[in-house]
Order: sequence, then structure tokens, then C-alpha cells
Amino acid sequence: MSQILVVGSLAYDSIQTPSGKVDKTLGGSANYFSLAASLFSKVRVVGVVGSDYNSEDKKMLSDRGVDLAGLEEVKGETFHWAGRYEGDLNEAKTLATHLNVFANFNPQLPEAYKSSEFVFLANIDPDLQTSVLNQIKTPVFVGMDTMNYWIQSKLDSLKKVIGRVNIVLINEGEAKQLTGAGNAVAAAPQICSMGPEAVIIKRGEYGFLLYNKDHGFFGLPAMPTAEVIDPTGAGDSFAGTVFGYLASLKRRPHFLDLKMACVKGTIVSSFTIQDFGMKKLKALDQAQLQERLAQFEKIVSR
Amino acid sequence: MSQILVVGSLAYDSIQTPSGKVDKTLGGSANYFSLAASLFSKVRVVGVVGSDYNSEDKKMLSDRGVDLAGLEEVKGETFHWAGRYEGDLNEAKTLATHLNVFANFNPQLPEAYKSSEFVFLANIDPDLQTSVLNQIKTPVFVGMDTMNYWIQSKLDSLKKVIGRVNIVLINEGEAKQLTGAGNAVAAAPQICSMGPEAVIIKRGEYGFLLYNKDHGFFGLPAMPTAEVIDPTGAGDSFAGTVFGYLASLKRRPHFLDLKMACVKGTIVSSFTIQDFGMKKLKALDQAQLQERLAQFEKIVSR
Repeated sequence: MSQILVVGSLAYDSIQTPSGKVDKTLGGSANYFSLAASLFSKVRVVGVVGSDYNSEDKKMLSDRGVDLAGLEEVKGETFHWAGRYEGDLNEAKTLATHLNVFANFNPQLPEAYKSSEFVFLANIDPDLQTSVLNQIKTPVFVGMDTMNYWIQSKLDSLKKVIGRVNIVLINEGEAKQLTGAGNAVAAAPQICSMGPEAVIIKRGEYGFLLYNKDHGFFGLPAMPTAEVIDPTGAGDSFAGTVFGYLASLKRRPHFLDLKMACVKGTIVSSFTIQDFGMKKLKALDQAQLQERLAQFEKIVSR
Repeated sequence: MSQILVVGSLAYDSIQTPSGKVDKTLGGSANYFSLAASLFSKVRVVGVVGSDYNSEDKKMLSDRGVDLAGLEEVKGETFHWAGRYEGDLNEAKTLATHLNVFANFNPQLPEAYKSSEFVFLANIDPDLQTSVLNQIKTPVFVGMDTMNYWIQSKLDSLKKVIGRVNIVLINEGEAKQLTGAGNAVAAAPQICSMGPEAVIIKRGEYGFLLYNKDHGFFGLPAMPTAEVIDPTGAGDSFAGTVFGYLASLKRRPHFLDLKMACVKGTIVSSFTIQDFGMKKLKALDQAQLQERLAQFEKIVSR
């Protein structure tokens, strides 16, 4: 029970921030998620890439033990996102979204993947999230993310997926949009009332808020970071870490496990934002992680 | 060493929030500060009110042990602020500011006040903050707050006050404005480099960030509060609690004391926002405070 399946985007991103810019660097929710999760567990990736997808980028992940058998490679170009962060870096302005090969993505799971017990449905069309979940035989712990686009355009489909998962990880703004609540504290129980036993509201530089029906709230600020280079992938790194850590415990997660998972997610995502794209996350090892975890514990301890 | 002196505004506020509105309710930084601080210590207030100031409002404070000998009463109307909160309630839109008797305020401390050891210079003209500080013989621990208006209009005077205090309590937006930093984490050390040994950056619904040159950061989220009725005075209640608690220890504050002070400030201000004006804060007692403190400890403990 340590295998995680993730479905999401594999992309090349062009990113501008006040610190500089990069062109067509490796990105996408499934890539950030997998790389982070691979620090703790085995990961299987379901997704689609174009013929331009770099073999080095695949090797980087498979070297980390990520199983790419579910990676469909089709003729055409890989999904491409271009965005710019300004001011406080809390929100990206999307400059371009080229779905490319992603437009006709119809996820078909390799036979071995269907017995995955930990499943994460990253931010993609809720109908595709459903399609993947339908192919899993006996899921034990399922999580998902989503975004404003699906809340606006496919709310009914989205709510059906939400009704089937154990945990929702979602940005604060989107949690408010989804529920109509005025703040994250009011939104969290409303999301749980749609089905999930727990929700993690991602608050960027302000950390996270975890809520569970039976145990209430758990929240902490982000790791204090004076210089943020590129916030892209912070949320997906957080989610990957949460699932990587939970799967490594080889049991159905308890609330205490979710708490520790969020703390670890906080640490890993604090590395992600310290350089462009996946650069920092690629180089991250357990020693760095433990060192910063100790610093963080000190910062939030009375 | 348990006497706190505070100088700031005593006001009547007219407040609109999505939950309703109140007209000319008791407010002002010095009032919120004093009422919160009086839960822990003796407080002396320096300020000015008009002939319209209600004797019931004075009695309410003196019943809590607040010393009003420094309250100057002059002919005219008391300071009046009108504001409206919308959407996420994080920022008030000021509809009207009538300085009234506050316009000619020239603080003269009663002789007994000059030996105060804990001093808080709430958000007023930095020249008045300086004038009060000059009258204190041997201050032990001095704190201050400020706002965007003084950062824009009296930056030199403001920096001189900052250079003389032990701790600055300031809103996140104003901390960034004061320093030009892109985020609170970068702003905090810059504020300390102006003189203070510590700074508390107030982040509203996201809690606080405490920074000290020698000990680094300490931060926690706010108490999760689903229904915020009126955020007015939350920051001043926080400051009052911090100083009330610190003064009650009867020693020069250690960093551990500042940490606990921030936790208590978090709890008291979580009451303030649950009703209009000072209504909730007036009724708050130690038992309610202890109960919520225990809840909060659980919410932020791994």
C-alpha cells in the first residue's frame, strides 16, 4: 500500500517573475507532484506528452523511482503554459494556455495501475478525474485538486468527483469560489459537506488550513521565505508531499498523519519556490528536508 | 513594573460590515488597547475626548481598573471615524475621519504617568508619539503602531520614533509600504534594522509574524473564525493583550514572553471581531480566554 497513482498535466512552462524568466521549462501538476512524492513513496504517473517531450525529463523522474508506464506519448506538442507573476507573487497571470496533445487526452490506465490504493487527481477536467477514478479497483485514499476554470465551467461534474474523494486540496480563493463562503474557515466545512472527510486549503505565503469533520481545524503559516523566485508548482509539491508521506505509512491515514503530512508539504514547497520551475525540487534530498523541518518546528513552537 | 501607559485615539466609530452597521459606537486605538490590556495589567490612558464623550464609556474602563487621569476633556466633539468593510473584511474603506478635538491634541502627562515603564504609542501622529515618549523618565519596554497615512506624510518623524522603540506592531500592508519589501518576511528584518529589537507583523485572518534579531521568526495563524462580524479594533486588542501580558510578568520581556504574548493577543482579538465595536471585548473574562486558548493550542499543535 505504498503505491500512489497521480493523473495530471505534464507541461513545458514559460514563466516570468520579478526575479527573471524561463522559457519552456519542465512543469505541470503531475510532474511537480511526482517529484515531491518520490521523496517518500513510489509514484505512478498517468498523463500525456507530445513528441517534443524531452527524454532527459523522463529520465529525471524515472531515476527518482517514478513509474512512467502510464505516460502516453502522442504526435504533437506537449501542453504549454505561460504565466507572469507580479507584485506579491500570490497569483499568476496566465499569458497563454496551449492544451496541444492534452486536448484529446483520454486516460487509459495500465493494468498494474488499477490496483493503486493512494490516488491523486490533480487539477484537470473533472470528467477525466472521474474516468481515472472509475478505473481504480479498490481505492483506499483519494485526493483531488481543481481550479477556478472547472468551478465555472463544469460545476456539476466537479461536485460528483468531490463527492467521491477522501480529501480535497484547493487554493483559498478557489475554496471560497466553490462554496460562496466569505473566508477559508467557513469554506472548509462546506467542502466536507460535499463528501470528503478532509480538506486542505492552500494559502500560499500564509500556509495551510486542514479541516476534518471529526477533528476540526489544524493550521500553520508557511515557512518564512524572504526571497521567492517562482511560486509555480508550490501547491502541487505540497500535494505530492502530503500523498508521498501518507502512502509511506502504509495504512489508512489518521488525522495526526494528515497533520504531519501538511507540515512536510510546507517544507518541500518552501524549497520549490526558491528557484525557477523544478530546479530546486530536483536537487532536494532528505538531509535538506530534515534541516529545514527542524527550523520550521522552532518557528511555530511556543 | 506592571503599569502600562498608552497614548492613542478615543473615538466614536460608525461601522458598516456585511453583518450590519452601528452608529457612533465607542472605539479608538487607546480604548481597544486599554480594555484588552486590562485583562492582565493596570493601564494609564493618555488621550483627548470632547464634551460629548459618554460618562458610561469612561466608567466602563475605570471599572476595569483603567486609569483615566491622563484623559483630557475639551470643548468640542470626540474624534469620529466612519468606515465600511466589504467582501473578505480584510480592509476597511474609510468613509469619514473627523479629527474634531484630536486636531489640537498636545499630550501632557500627569506627573505620576512619567514613571511608566511599559509604554505603547498607538497609531497617532509620530510627532505626538515622540512628545509622549520624551515625557517618560525611564521607559523599559516601548512599543508602537503606525499607519499608511504617516508613512506617506511624515516618514522622517516616523523613522525617528521607530528608532527609539523596542517593538513595532504593524499591519502587513504597512510593513511592506514602510520598507518597500515584497513580503512580510523580508520586511521584518528591515524594520528591526531601523532600531527596534522586535517587530510583530499583523496579518489579519492569517495571524501574525513575530521577528527578533537574535531569535528569528515565530508565527502562527489566527484563531479560525467562520463568522467575522466586525474586524475593527482587532489589531489594537492584539497590541493591548501583548503589552498587558508582558507587563504582568514584571520583568524585561524575553523572546519566549513575546511568543506567549502573541498567542494571547491572537485569542483576545478573535473575540473582538465576533461582534460590533467593543461589545465582545467588554464581556470577555479569563475563563472564556482560557477555554479558547486551549482550543487554539490544539489547532496549531502537531
